[in-house]
Amino acid sequence: MFSRQQLVSQIHKKKSFLCIGLDTDPEKIPAFLNNFPNPVMEFNRRVIDATHDLCIAYKPNTAFYESYGAKGWQNLIDTCNYIPDDVFKIADAKRGDLGNTGEMYAKAFFNKASSGMEFDAVTVAPYMGADSVIPFLAYQNKWVILLALTSNQSHQDFQLSETENGALYEQVLQKSQTWGTTEQLMYVVGATRGEAFLTIRKQVPDHFLLVPGVGAQGGSMEEVCKYGMNESCGLIINASRSVIYASNGRDFAEAARAEALSIQVEMEKQLVKYRFLE
Amino acid sequence: MFSRQQLVSQIHKKKSFLCIGLDTDPEKIPAFLNNFPNPVMEFNRRVIDATHDLCIAYKPNTAFYESYGAKGWQNLIDTCNYIPDDVFKIADAKRGDLGNTGEMYAKAFFNKASSGMEFDAVTVAPYMGADSVIPFLAYQNKWVILLALTSNQSHQDFQLSETENGALYEQVLQKSQTWGTTEQLMYVVGATRGEAFLTIRKQVPDHFLLVPGVGAQGGSMEEVCKYGMNESCGLIINASRSVIYASNGRDFAEAARAEALSIQVEMEKQLVKYRFLE
Repeated sequence: MFSRQQLVSQIHKKKSFLCIGLDTDPEKIPAFLNNFPNPVMEFNRRVIDATHDLCIAYKPNTAFYESYGAKGWQNLIDTCNYIPDDVFKIADAKRGDLGNTGEMYAKAFFNKASSGMEFDAVTVAPYMGADSVIPFLAYQNKWVILLALTSNQSHQDFQLSETENGALYEQVLQKSQTWGTTEQLMYVVGATRGEAFLTIRKQVPDHFLLVPGVGAQGGSMEEVCKYGMNESCGLIINASRSVIYASNGRDFAEAARAEALSIQVEMEKQLVKYRFLE
Repeated sequence: MFSRQQLVSQIHKKKSFLCIGLDTDPEKIPAFLNNFPNPVMEFNRRVIDATHDLCIAYKPNTAFYESYGAKGWQNLIDTCNYIPDDVFKIADAKRGDLGNTGEMYAKAFFNKASSGMEFDAVTVAPYMGADSVIPFLAYQNKWVILLALTSNQSHQDFQLSETENGALYEQVLQKSQTWGTTEQLMYVVGATRGEAFLTIRKQVPDHFLLVPGVGAQGGSMEEVCKYGMNESCGLIINASRSVIYASNGRDFAEAARAEALSIQVEMEKQLVKYRFLE
Protein backbone atom coordinates (compact mmCIF):
# COMPACT_ATOMS: atom_id res chain seq x y z
CA MET A 1 0.00 0.00 0.00
CA PHE A 2 1.60 3.19 -1.12
CA SER A 3 -0.61 6.08 -2.16
CA ARG A 4 0.51 9.00 -4.27
CA GLN A 5 0.28 11.18 -1.19
CA GLN A 6 2.62 8.88 0.74
CA LEU A 7 5.08 8.94 -2.12
CA VAL A 8 5.09 12.73 -2.27
CA SER A 9 5.52 12.96 1.49
CA GLN A 10 8.52 10.60 1.38
CA ILE A 11 10.12 12.83 -1.26
CA HIS A 12 9.55 15.80 1.04
CA LYS A 13 10.95 14.04 4.05
CA LYS A 14 14.04 12.56 2.40
CA LYS A 15 14.63 15.44 -0.02
CA SER A 16 15.24 12.77 -2.57
CA PHE A 17 13.50 11.13 -5.50
CA LEU A 18 16.11 8.44 -5.93
CA CYS A 19 15.26 4.85 -6.78
CA ILE A 20 18.04 2.30 -6.39
CA GLY A 21 17.99 -0.58 -8.84
CA LEU A 22 18.83 -3.84 -7.10
CA ASP A 23 20.11 -5.60 -10.22
CA THR A 24 22.27 -7.92 -8.20
CA ASP A 25 24.48 -10.13 -10.34
CA PRO A 26 26.26 -12.83 -8.30
CA GLU A 27 29.20 -12.53 -10.68
CA LYS A 28 29.65 -8.81 -10.01
CA ILE A 29 29.36 -8.58 -6.24
CA PRO A 30 32.51 -8.39 -4.08
CA ALA A 31 34.23 -11.78 -3.92
CA PHE A 32 34.42 -11.89 -0.11
CA LEU A 33 30.63 -12.23 0.02
CA ASN A 34 30.94 -15.72 -1.36
CA ASN A 35 31.91 -16.81 2.15
CA PHE A 36 28.37 -16.08 3.32
CA PRO A 37 25.57 -18.65 3.05
CA ASN A 38 23.62 -16.43 0.67
CA PRO A 39 25.91 -13.88 -1.03
CA VAL A 40 23.13 -12.13 -2.97
CA MET A 41 21.01 -11.55 0.13
CA GLU A 42 24.04 -10.46 2.13
CA PHE A 43 24.77 -7.92 -0.59
CA ASN A 44 21.18 -6.69 -0.88
CA ARG A 45 20.69 -6.38 2.89
CA ARG A 46 23.86 -4.36 3.33
CA VAL A 47 23.03 -2.08 0.40
CA ILE A 48 19.52 -1.51 1.73
CA ASP A 49 20.76 -0.89 5.28
CA ALA A 50 23.27 1.64 3.98
CA THR A 51 20.98 3.60 1.66
CA HIS A 52 17.31 3.40 2.69
CA ASP A 53 17.29 6.86 4.27
CA LEU A 54 18.57 8.40 1.03
CA CYS A 55 16.22 6.86 -1.51
CA ILE A 56 12.45 6.68 -1.82
CA ALA A 57 12.28 3.49 -3.88
CA TYR A 58 14.06 0.21 -4.60
CA LYS A 59 13.68 -1.58 -7.87
CA PRO A 60 14.90 -5.16 -8.15
CA ASN A 61 14.94 -6.26 -11.78
CA THR A 62 13.40 -9.73 -11.81
CA ALA A 63 15.71 -11.01 -14.58
CA PHE A 64 18.66 -10.98 -12.19
CA TYR A 65 16.79 -13.26 -9.81
CA GLU A 66 15.03 -15.70 -12.10
CA SER A 67 18.27 -16.45 -13.92
CA TYR A 68 19.30 -18.34 -10.78
CA GLY A 69 16.33 -20.66 -10.54
CA ALA A 70 14.03 -21.16 -7.57
CA LYS A 71 16.75 -20.00 -5.18
CA GLY A 72 17.04 -16.78 -7.14
CA TRP A 73 13.28 -16.32 -7.03
CA GLN A 74 13.35 -16.81 -3.27
CA ASN A 75 15.99 -14.08 -3.09
CA LEU A 76 13.62 -11.75 -4.93
CA ILE A 77 10.91 -12.52 -2.38
CA ASP A 78 13.28 -12.07 0.56
CA THR A 79 14.61 -8.82 -0.88
CA CYS A 80 11.09 -7.46 -1.31
CA ASN A 81 10.29 -8.38 2.28
CA TYR A 82 13.49 -6.83 3.60
CA ILE A 83 12.82 -3.38 2.10
CA PRO A 84 11.43 -1.09 4.84
CA ASP A 85 7.75 -0.21 4.53
CA ASP A 86 8.38 3.49 4.02
CA VAL A 87 10.26 2.80 0.78
CA PHE A 88 8.34 2.27 -2.47
CA LYS A 89 8.94 -1.20 -3.87
CA ILE A 90 9.05 -1.60 -7.63
CA ALA A 91 9.22 -4.99 -9.33
CA ASP A 92 10.99 -4.20 -12.59
CA ALA A 93 9.45 -7.15 -14.37
CA LYS A 94 8.27 -5.72 -17.71
CA ARG A 95 5.44 -8.21 -17.76
CA GLY A 96 2.33 -8.06 -19.90
CA ASP A 97 -0.13 -10.74 -20.92
CA LEU A 98 -3.84 -11.01 -21.63
CA GLY A 99 -6.76 -11.22 -19.16
CA ASN A 100 -6.54 -14.35 -17.02
CA THR A 101 -2.76 -14.52 -17.37
CA GLY A 102 -2.42 -10.86 -16.47
CA GLU A 103 -4.30 -11.64 -13.27
CA MET A 104 -1.70 -14.28 -12.45
CA TYR A 105 1.10 -11.76 -12.92
CA ALA A 106 -0.71 -9.32 -10.65
CA LYS A 107 -0.98 -12.07 -8.05
CA ALA A 108 2.73 -12.81 -8.38
CA PHE A 109 3.75 -9.27 -7.49
CA PHE A 110 0.88 -7.91 -5.38
CA ASN A 111 -0.66 -10.82 -3.50
CA LYS A 112 1.61 -11.83 -0.66
CA ALA A 113 -0.65 -14.61 0.56
CA SER A 114 -0.12 -16.40 -2.73
CA SER A 115 3.37 -15.45 -3.88
CA GLY A 116 5.14 -14.51 -0.67
CA MET A 117 5.81 -10.93 -1.71
CA GLU A 118 4.00 -7.64 -2.13
CA PHE A 119 5.46 -4.94 -4.28
CA ASP A 120 3.88 -1.49 -4.58
CA ALA A 121 4.40 -1.27 -8.33
CA VAL A 122 5.31 -3.37 -11.31
CA THR A 123 6.68 -2.33 -14.71
CA VAL A 124 4.51 -3.48 -17.63
CA ALA A 125 5.10 -3.54 -21.39
CA PRO A 126 2.24 -2.02 -23.40
CA TYR A 127 2.38 -4.05 -26.61
CA MET A 128 -0.69 -6.19 -25.82
CA GLY A 129 -2.83 -3.20 -24.83
CA ALA A 130 -5.39 -2.55 -22.09
CA ASP A 131 -6.08 -6.23 -21.29
CA SER A 132 -2.55 -6.65 -20.05
CA VAL A 133 -2.60 -3.60 -17.78
CA ILE A 134 -6.06 -3.67 -16.23
CA PRO A 135 -5.60 -6.78 -14.04
CA PHE A 136 -2.92 -4.93 -12.06
CA LEU A 137 -5.17 -1.91 -11.52
CA ALA A 138 -7.73 -4.00 -9.67
CA TYR A 139 -5.44 -3.83 -6.60
CA GLN A 140 -5.94 -0.78 -4.40
CA ASN A 141 -3.03 1.59 -3.88
CA LYS A 142 -0.91 -0.44 -6.30
CA TRP A 143 0.76 0.95 -9.37
CA VAL A 144 1.47 0.01 -12.94
CA ILE A 145 4.55 1.65 -14.41
CA LEU A 146 4.03 1.39 -18.14
CA LEU A 147 6.96 1.41 -20.55
CA ALA A 148 6.66 4.52 -22.70
CA LEU A 149 10.07 5.70 -23.93
CA THR A 150 12.85 3.44 -22.70
CA SER A 151 16.50 4.36 -22.28
CA ASN A 152 18.06 1.67 -24.48
CA GLN A 153 19.45 2.39 -27.94
CA SER A 154 16.88 0.31 -29.77
CA HIS A 155 13.89 2.16 -28.31
CA GLN A 156 14.04 3.71 -31.77
CA ASP A 157 12.92 0.49 -33.44
CA PHE A 158 9.27 0.84 -32.55
CA GLN A 159 8.70 3.46 -29.83
CA LEU A 160 9.51 6.31 -32.18
CA SER A 161 7.47 4.96 -35.11
CA GLU A 162 5.14 7.64 -36.42
CA THR A 163 1.49 6.67 -36.11
CA GLU A 164 -1.67 8.63 -36.85
CA ASN A 165 -1.41 9.98 -33.27
CA GLY A 166 2.24 10.93 -33.03
CA ALA A 167 5.07 8.57 -32.18
CA LEU A 168 4.05 5.20 -30.79
CA TYR A 169 5.20 6.13 -27.28
CA GLU A 170 2.95 9.19 -27.40
CA GLN A 171 0.05 7.00 -28.39
CA VAL A 172 0.85 4.78 -25.41
CA LEU A 173 0.71 7.81 -23.12
CA GLN A 174 -2.57 9.03 -24.61
CA LYS A 175 -4.45 5.78 -24.71
CA SER A 176 -3.35 4.35 -21.39
CA GLN A 177 -4.54 7.42 -19.49
CA THR A 178 -8.07 6.16 -19.91
CA TRP A 179 -7.23 2.88 -18.17
CA GLY A 180 -6.36 4.26 -14.75
CA THR A 181 -5.73 7.41 -12.73
CA THR A 182 -2.61 9.35 -11.79
CA GLU A 183 -2.84 7.45 -8.49
CA GLN A 184 -2.34 4.11 -10.28
CA LEU A 185 -0.29 4.71 -13.39
CA MET A 186 3.24 5.93 -13.95
CA TYR A 187 5.41 5.78 -17.04
CA VAL A 188 8.96 4.71 -17.75
CA VAL A 189 10.72 7.51 -19.61
CA GLY A 190 14.44 7.19 -20.23
CA ALA A 191 16.67 10.13 -19.37
CA THR A 192 18.70 9.75 -22.52
CA ARG A 193 16.37 12.06 -24.45
CA GLY A 194 16.00 15.01 -22.07
CA GLU A 195 14.12 17.15 -24.58
CA ALA A 196 11.48 14.44 -24.95
CA PHE A 197 10.24 15.37 -21.46
CA LEU A 198 8.84 18.59 -22.93
CA THR A 199 6.53 16.66 -25.25
CA ILE A 200 5.77 14.10 -22.58
CA ARG A 201 4.76 16.63 -19.94
CA LYS A 202 2.27 18.12 -22.40
CA GLN A 203 0.53 14.77 -22.48
CA VAL A 204 0.96 13.62 -18.91
CA PRO A 205 1.47 16.76 -16.82
CA ASP A 206 0.53 15.11 -13.54
CA HIS A 207 1.78 11.54 -13.73
CA PHE A 208 4.85 10.28 -11.98
CA LEU A 209 7.63 9.19 -14.33
CA LEU A 210 10.20 6.53 -13.53
CA VAL A 211 13.41 7.63 -15.18
CA PRO A 212 16.30 5.25 -15.87
CA GLY A 213 19.40 6.23 -17.76
CA VAL A 214 20.83 9.08 -15.67
CA GLY A 215 24.53 8.49 -15.11
CA ALA A 216 25.79 5.25 -16.65
CA GLN A 217 23.61 5.60 -19.74
CA GLY A 218 24.46 9.29 -20.21
CA GLY A 219 21.24 11.12 -19.24
CA SER A 220 21.45 14.47 -17.43
CA MET A 221 19.61 14.92 -14.14
CA GLU A 222 19.50 18.67 -14.63
CA GLU A 223 17.77 18.36 -17.97
CA VAL A 224 15.31 15.76 -16.72
CA CYS A 225 14.35 18.04 -13.82
CA LYS A 226 14.14 21.12 -16.00
CA TYR A 227 11.70 19.54 -18.40
CA GLY A 228 10.15 16.81 -16.31
CA MET A 229 9.56 18.00 -12.74
CA ASN A 230 6.01 18.99 -11.75
CA GLU A 231 4.30 20.28 -8.60
CA SER A 232 4.39 16.86 -6.94
CA CYS A 233 7.99 16.37 -8.06
CA GLY A 234 6.59 13.75 -10.45
CA LEU A 235 9.95 12.08 -10.96
CA ILE A 236 11.56 8.94 -9.63
CA ILE A 237 15.08 8.77 -11.00
CA ASN A 238 16.71 5.38 -10.97
CA ALA A 239 20.38 4.52 -10.51
CA SER A 240 21.50 0.91 -10.43
CA ARG A 241 25.06 -0.07 -11.21
CA SER A 242 26.58 3.31 -10.33
CA VAL A 243 25.31 2.89 -6.76
CA ILE A 244 25.38 -0.81 -6.00
CA TYR A 245 28.73 -1.44 -7.68
CA ALA A 246 30.35 1.80 -6.53
CA SER A 247 33.11 -0.32 -4.97
CA ASN A 248 34.03 -3.93 -5.48
CA GLY A 249 35.72 -4.24 -2.10
CA ARG A 250 34.74 -4.75 1.52
CA ASP A 251 33.56 -1.14 1.62
CA PHE A 252 30.89 -1.67 -1.06
CA ALA A 253 28.01 -0.67 1.20
CA GLU A 254 29.70 2.52 2.38
CA ALA A 255 30.62 3.30 -1.22
CA ALA A 256 27.01 2.72 -2.28
CA ARG A 257 25.92 5.10 0.46
CA ALA A 258 28.42 7.75 -0.63
CA GLU A 259 27.21 7.54 -4.22
CA ALA A 260 23.53 7.61 -3.16
CA LEU A 261 24.30 10.61 -0.95
CA SER A 262 25.91 12.54 -3.75
CA ILE A 263 22.85 11.91 -5.91
CA GLN A 264 20.52 12.90 -3.07
CA VAL A 265 22.41 16.18 -2.57
CA GLU A 266 22.01 16.99 -6.25
CA MET A 267 18.33 16.05 -6.06
CA GLU A 268 17.77 18.32 -3.09
CA LYS A 269 19.20 21.20 -5.11
CA GLN A 270 16.82 20.48 -7.95
CA LEU A 271 13.86 20.22 -5.57
CA VAL A 272 14.71 23.65 -4.18
CA LYS A 273 15.35 25.12 -7.62
CA TYR A 274 11.93 24.05 -8.86
CA ARG A 275 10.27 25.05 -5.58
CA PHE A 276 9.12 21.67 -4.44
CA LEU A 277 11.16 22.38 -1.31
CA GLU A 278 11.51 25.82 0.22
CA MET B 1 18.59 -27.89 -28.69
CA PHE B 2 15.85 -28.10 -31.25
CA SER B 3 16.65 -27.20 -34.84
CA ARG B 4 14.05 -26.25 -37.41
CA GLN B 5 14.71 -29.57 -39.13
CA GLN B 6 13.96 -31.47 -35.93
CA LEU B 7 10.75 -29.55 -35.49
CA VAL B 8 9.60 -30.31 -39.01
CA SER B 9 10.47 -33.96 -38.59
CA GLN B 10 8.43 -34.18 -35.37
CA ILE B 11 5.44 -32.71 -37.23
CA HIS B 12 5.89 -35.40 -39.88
CA LYS B 13 6.20 -38.16 -37.37
CA LYS B 14 3.30 -37.17 -35.13
CA LYS B 15 1.08 -35.78 -37.91
CA SER B 16 0.43 -32.94 -35.54
CA PHE B 17 1.44 -29.34 -35.01
CA LEU B 18 -0.28 -29.05 -31.65
CA CYS B 19 1.22 -27.17 -28.73
CA ILE B 20 -0.38 -27.73 -25.35
CA GLY B 21 -0.37 -24.76 -23.02
CA LEU B 22 0.43 -25.83 -19.47
CA ASP B 23 -1.31 -22.89 -17.80
CA THR B 24 -1.86 -24.83 -14.63
CA ASP B 25 -3.94 -22.96 -12.09
CA PRO B 26 -4.03 -24.72 -8.69
CA GLU B 27 -7.57 -23.42 -8.24
CA LYS B 28 -8.80 -25.07 -11.44
CA ILE B 29 -7.30 -28.54 -11.28
CA PRO B 30 -9.40 -31.49 -10.06
CA ALA B 31 -9.89 -31.32 -6.30
CA PHE B 32 -8.72 -34.90 -5.63
CA LEU B 33 -5.19 -33.85 -6.64
CA ASN B 34 -4.94 -31.82 -3.46
CA ASN B 35 -4.27 -35.10 -1.67
CA PHE B 36 -0.91 -35.34 -3.42
CA PRO B 37 2.22 -33.67 -2.05
CA ASN B 38 2.49 -31.42 -5.11
CA PRO B 39 -0.87 -31.11 -6.89
CA VAL B 40 0.43 -28.93 -9.75
CA MET B 41 3.23 -31.34 -10.62
CA GLU B 42 0.91 -34.31 -10.31
CA PHE B 43 -1.43 -32.60 -12.76
CA ASN B 44 1.32 -31.62 -15.20
CA ARG B 45 2.99 -35.02 -15.16
CA ARG B 46 -0.27 -36.83 -15.89
CA VAL B 47 -1.22 -34.42 -18.67
CA ILE B 48 2.23 -34.78 -20.25
CA ASP B 49 2.18 -38.59 -19.94
CA ALA B 50 -1.24 -38.70 -21.57
CA THR B 51 -0.56 -36.34 -24.47
CA HIS B 52 3.12 -36.22 -25.46
CA ASP B 53 2.69 -38.48 -28.48
CA LEU B 54 -0.02 -36.19 -29.87
CA CYS B 55 1.62 -32.81 -29.58
CA ILE B 56 4.93 -31.40 -30.78
CA ALA B 57 5.28 -28.69 -28.13
CA TYR B 58 4.39 -27.76 -24.57
CA LYS B 59 4.10 -24.19 -23.46
CA PRO B 60 3.95 -23.42 -19.75
CA ASN B 61 2.96 -19.81 -19.20
CA THR B 62 5.31 -18.50 -16.51
CA ALA B 63 2.65 -16.29 -14.89
CA PHE B 64 0.84 -19.36 -13.57
CA TYR B 65 4.00 -20.50 -11.80
CA GLU B 66 5.47 -17.28 -10.44
CA SER B 67 2.16 -16.35 -8.85
CA TYR B 68 2.89 -19.12 -6.32
CA GLY B 69 6.29 -17.93 -5.20
CA ALA B 70 9.53 -19.92 -5.16
CA LYS B 71 7.60 -23.17 -4.95
CA GLY B 72 5.73 -22.21 -8.10
CA TRP B 73 8.98 -21.34 -9.82
CA GLN B 74 10.38 -24.74 -8.86
CA ASN B 75 7.29 -26.31 -10.44
CA LEU B 76 8.10 -24.47 -13.68
CA ILE B 77 11.63 -25.89 -13.57
CA ASP B 78 10.41 -29.39 -12.78
CA THR B 79 7.79 -29.21 -15.52
CA CYS B 80 10.39 -28.13 -18.07
CA ASN B 81 12.62 -31.01 -17.04
CA TYR B 82 9.78 -33.52 -17.18
CA ILE B 83 8.86 -32.75 -20.81
CA PRO B 84 10.39 -35.45 -23.06
CA ASP B 85 13.31 -34.32 -25.20
CA ASP B 86 11.51 -34.90 -28.49
CA VAL B 87 8.91 -32.27 -27.60
CA PHE B 88 9.65 -28.59 -28.21
CA LYS B 89 9.62 -26.61 -24.95
CA ILE B 90 8.32 -23.06 -25.04
CA ALA B 91 8.54 -20.73 -22.05
CA ASP B 92 5.60 -18.39 -22.59
CA ALA B 93 7.20 -15.61 -20.61
CA LYS B 94 6.66 -12.52 -22.80
CA ARG B 95 9.89 -11.07 -21.48
CA GLY B 96 11.88 -8.23 -22.99
CA ASP B 97 14.49 -5.94 -21.48
CA LEU B 98 17.62 -4.14 -22.61
CA GLY B 99 21.13 -5.55 -23.13
CA ASN B 100 22.59 -6.86 -19.87
CA THR B 101 19.15 -7.57 -18.44
CA GLY B 102 18.10 -9.38 -21.60
CA GLU B 103 21.14 -11.62 -21.12
CA MET B 104 19.86 -12.50 -17.66
CA TYR B 105 16.48 -13.47 -19.08
CA ALA B 106 18.17 -15.64 -21.69
CA LYS B 107 20.11 -17.30 -18.88
CA ALA B 108 16.90 -17.90 -16.95
CA PHE B 109 15.30 -19.85 -19.77
CA PHE B 110 18.19 -21.31 -21.76
CA ASN B 111 21.07 -21.93 -19.34
CA LYS B 112 20.32 -24.96 -17.24
CA ALA B 113 23.57 -24.80 -15.29
CA SER B 114 22.45 -21.46 -13.88
CA SER B 115 18.67 -21.63 -13.68
CA GLY B 116 17.94 -25.35 -13.53
CA MET B 117 15.94 -25.41 -16.75
CA GLU B 118 16.48 -25.29 -20.48
CA PHE B 119 13.65 -24.35 -22.77
CA ASP B 120 13.96 -24.44 -26.56
CA ALA B 121 12.13 -21.17 -27.06
CA VAL B 122 10.87 -18.15 -25.19
CA THR B 123 8.18 -15.64 -26.10
CA VAL B 124 9.41 -12.04 -26.17
CA ALA B 125 7.57 -8.70 -26.38
CA PRO B 126 8.99 -6.38 -29.07
CA TYR B 127 8.34 -2.95 -27.54
CA MET B 128 11.96 -2.29 -26.53
CA GLY B 129 13.35 -3.32 -29.93
CA ALA B 130 16.41 -5.27 -31.08
CA ASP B 131 18.35 -4.94 -27.80
CA SER B 132 15.76 -7.01 -26.02
CA VAL B 133 15.73 -9.83 -28.58
CA ILE B 134 19.38 -10.26 -29.52
CA PRO B 135 20.63 -11.69 -26.18
CA PHE B 136 18.39 -14.74 -26.70
CA LEU B 137 19.73 -15.30 -30.21
CA ALA B 138 23.26 -15.79 -28.94
CA TYR B 139 22.24 -19.32 -27.90
CA GLN B 140 22.57 -21.95 -30.62
CA ASN B 141 19.47 -23.83 -31.72
CA LYS B 142 17.33 -21.72 -29.43
CA TRP B 143 14.37 -19.68 -30.53
CA VAL B 144 12.76 -16.34 -29.86
CA ILE B 145 9.02 -16.25 -30.51
CA LEU B 146 8.26 -12.58 -30.92
CA LEU B 147 4.80 -11.18 -30.23
CA ALA B 148 3.41 -9.84 -33.49
CA LEU B 149 -0.39 -9.97 -33.56
CA THR B 150 -1.79 -11.36 -30.33
CA SER B 151 -5.17 -13.03 -29.85
CA ASN B 152 -6.55 -10.78 -27.11
CA GLN B 153 -9.20 -8.15 -27.73
CA SER B 154 -6.94 -5.22 -26.95
CA HIS B 155 -4.30 -6.15 -29.52
CA GLN B 156 -6.10 -3.35 -31.35
CA ASP B 157 -4.77 -0.72 -28.97
CA PHE B 158 -1.29 -0.58 -30.46
CA GLN B 159 -0.58 -3.57 -32.72
CA LEU B 160 -2.94 -2.28 -35.40
CA SER B 161 -1.76 1.33 -35.23
CA GLU B 162 -0.91 2.57 -38.69
CA THR B 163 2.72 3.57 -39.03
CA GLU B 164 4.70 4.70 -42.05
CA ASN B 165 5.34 0.98 -42.75
CA GLY B 166 1.91 -0.52 -42.32
CA ALA B 167 0.36 -1.57 -39.04
CA LEU B 168 2.73 -1.75 -36.08
CA TYR B 169 2.66 -5.57 -36.08
CA GLU B 170 3.75 -5.53 -39.73
CA GLN B 171 6.60 -3.26 -38.83
CA VAL B 172 7.59 -5.72 -36.11
CA LEU B 173 7.63 -8.53 -38.69
CA GLN B 174 9.69 -6.50 -41.14
CA LYS B 175 12.25 -5.10 -38.81
CA SER B 176 12.85 -8.14 -36.66
CA GLN B 177 13.69 -10.31 -39.69
CA THR B 178 17.05 -8.59 -39.80
CA TRP B 179 17.84 -9.68 -36.25
CA GLY B 180 17.88 -13.44 -36.78
CA THR B 181 17.12 -16.23 -39.23
CA THR B 182 14.11 -18.48 -39.80
CA GLU B 183 16.02 -21.01 -37.71
CA GLN B 184 15.91 -18.70 -34.67
CA LEU B 185 12.83 -16.55 -34.90
CA MET B 186 9.12 -17.33 -34.88
CA TYR B 187 6.15 -15.04 -34.37
CA VAL B 188 3.04 -15.15 -32.23
CA VAL B 189 0.02 -14.59 -34.45
CA GLY B 190 -3.42 -15.01 -32.94
CA ALA B 191 -5.95 -17.15 -34.78
CA THR B 192 -8.74 -14.71 -34.12
CA ARG B 193 -8.02 -12.79 -37.32
CA GLY B 194 -7.70 -15.59 -39.91
CA GLU B 195 -7.52 -13.23 -42.86
CA ALA B 196 -4.51 -11.49 -41.31
CA PHE B 197 -2.45 -14.59 -42.15
CA LEU B 198 -2.63 -13.60 -45.82
CA THR B 199 -0.85 -10.33 -45.14
CA ILE B 200 1.51 -11.97 -42.68
CA ARG B 201 2.59 -14.74 -45.05
CA LYS B 202 3.55 -12.10 -47.63
CA GLN B 203 6.01 -10.73 -45.13
CA VAL B 204 7.20 -13.90 -43.44
CA PRO B 205 6.58 -16.72 -45.91
CA ASP B 206 9.05 -19.11 -44.28
CA HIS B 207 8.89 -18.44 -40.56
CA PHE B 208 7.13 -20.65 -38.08
CA LEU B 209 4.14 -19.01 -36.41
CA LEU B 210 2.90 -19.84 -32.93
CA VAL B 211 -0.87 -19.51 -33.05
CA PRO B 212 -2.99 -19.13 -29.91
CA GLY B 213 -6.72 -18.50 -29.99
CA VAL B 214 -8.06 -21.53 -31.87
CA GLY B 215 -11.01 -22.97 -29.97
CA ALA B 216 -11.74 -21.13 -26.69
CA GLN B 217 -10.97 -17.72 -28.19
CA GLY B 218 -12.96 -18.38 -31.39
CA GLY B 219 -10.27 -18.82 -34.08
CA SER B 220 -10.79 -21.34 -36.88
CA MET B 221 -8.13 -23.98 -37.51
CA GLU B 222 -9.29 -24.39 -41.08
CA GLU B 223 -8.82 -20.72 -41.84
CA VAL B 224 -5.44 -20.55 -40.12
CA CYS B 225 -4.22 -23.50 -42.18
CA LYS B 226 -5.69 -22.15 -45.42
CA TYR B 227 -3.90 -18.85 -45.11
CA GLY B 228 -1.01 -19.70 -42.85
CA MET B 229 0.45 -23.12 -43.70
CA ASN B 230 3.66 -23.26 -45.72
CA GLU B 231 5.91 -26.01 -47.12
CA SER B 232 7.41 -26.75 -43.71
CA CYS B 233 3.94 -26.62 -42.12
CA GLY B 234 5.10 -23.39 -40.50
CA LEU B 235 2.42 -23.47 -37.84
CA ILE B 236 2.34 -24.43 -34.19
CA ILE B 237 -1.23 -24.14 -32.98
CA ASN B 238 -1.70 -23.83 -29.26
CA ALA B 239 -4.55 -25.10 -27.12
CA SER B 240 -4.47 -24.62 -23.37
CA ARG B 241 -7.66 -24.71 -21.32
CA SER B 242 -9.68 -26.76 -23.82
CA VAL B 243 -7.17 -29.60 -23.42
CA ILE B 244 -5.91 -29.45 -19.86
CA TYR B 245 -9.28 -28.71 -18.30
CA ALA B 246 -11.28 -31.03 -20.59
CA SER B 247 -12.56 -32.75 -17.47
CA ASN B 248 -12.54 -31.70 -13.85
CA GLY B 249 -12.78 -35.25 -12.53
CA ARG B 250 -10.47 -38.18 -11.94
CA ASP B 251 -10.43 -38.80 -15.68
CA PHE B 252 -8.84 -35.42 -16.48
CA ALA B 253 -5.76 -36.94 -18.12
CA GLU B 254 -7.78 -39.28 -20.35
CA ALA B 255 -10.09 -36.39 -21.20
CA ALA B 256 -7.07 -34.21 -22.06
CA ARG B 257 -5.82 -37.00 -24.30
CA ALA B 258 -9.20 -37.35 -26.02
CA GLU B 259 -9.30 -33.62 -26.71
CA ALA B 260 -5.69 -33.56 -27.93
CA LEU B 261 -6.46 -36.55 -30.16
CA SER B 262 -9.43 -34.87 -31.76
CA ILE B 263 -7.27 -31.83 -32.51
CA GLN B 264 -4.49 -34.05 -33.88
CA VAL B 265 -6.95 -35.81 -36.20
CA GLU B 266 -8.10 -32.48 -37.56
CA MET B 267 -4.48 -31.36 -37.95
CA GLU B 268 -3.60 -34.52 -39.86
CA LYS B 269 -6.42 -33.74 -42.32
CA GLN B 270 -5.07 -30.24 -42.83
CA LEU B 271 -1.53 -31.54 -43.33
CA VAL B 272 -2.79 -33.89 -46.04
CA LYS B 273 -4.98 -31.23 -47.62
CA TYR B 274 -2.06 -28.85 -47.97
CA ARG B 275 0.27 -31.65 -49.06
CA PHE B 276 2.69 -31.56 -46.18
CA LEU B 277 1.76 -35.23 -45.71
CA GLU B 278 0.97 -37.57 -48.60
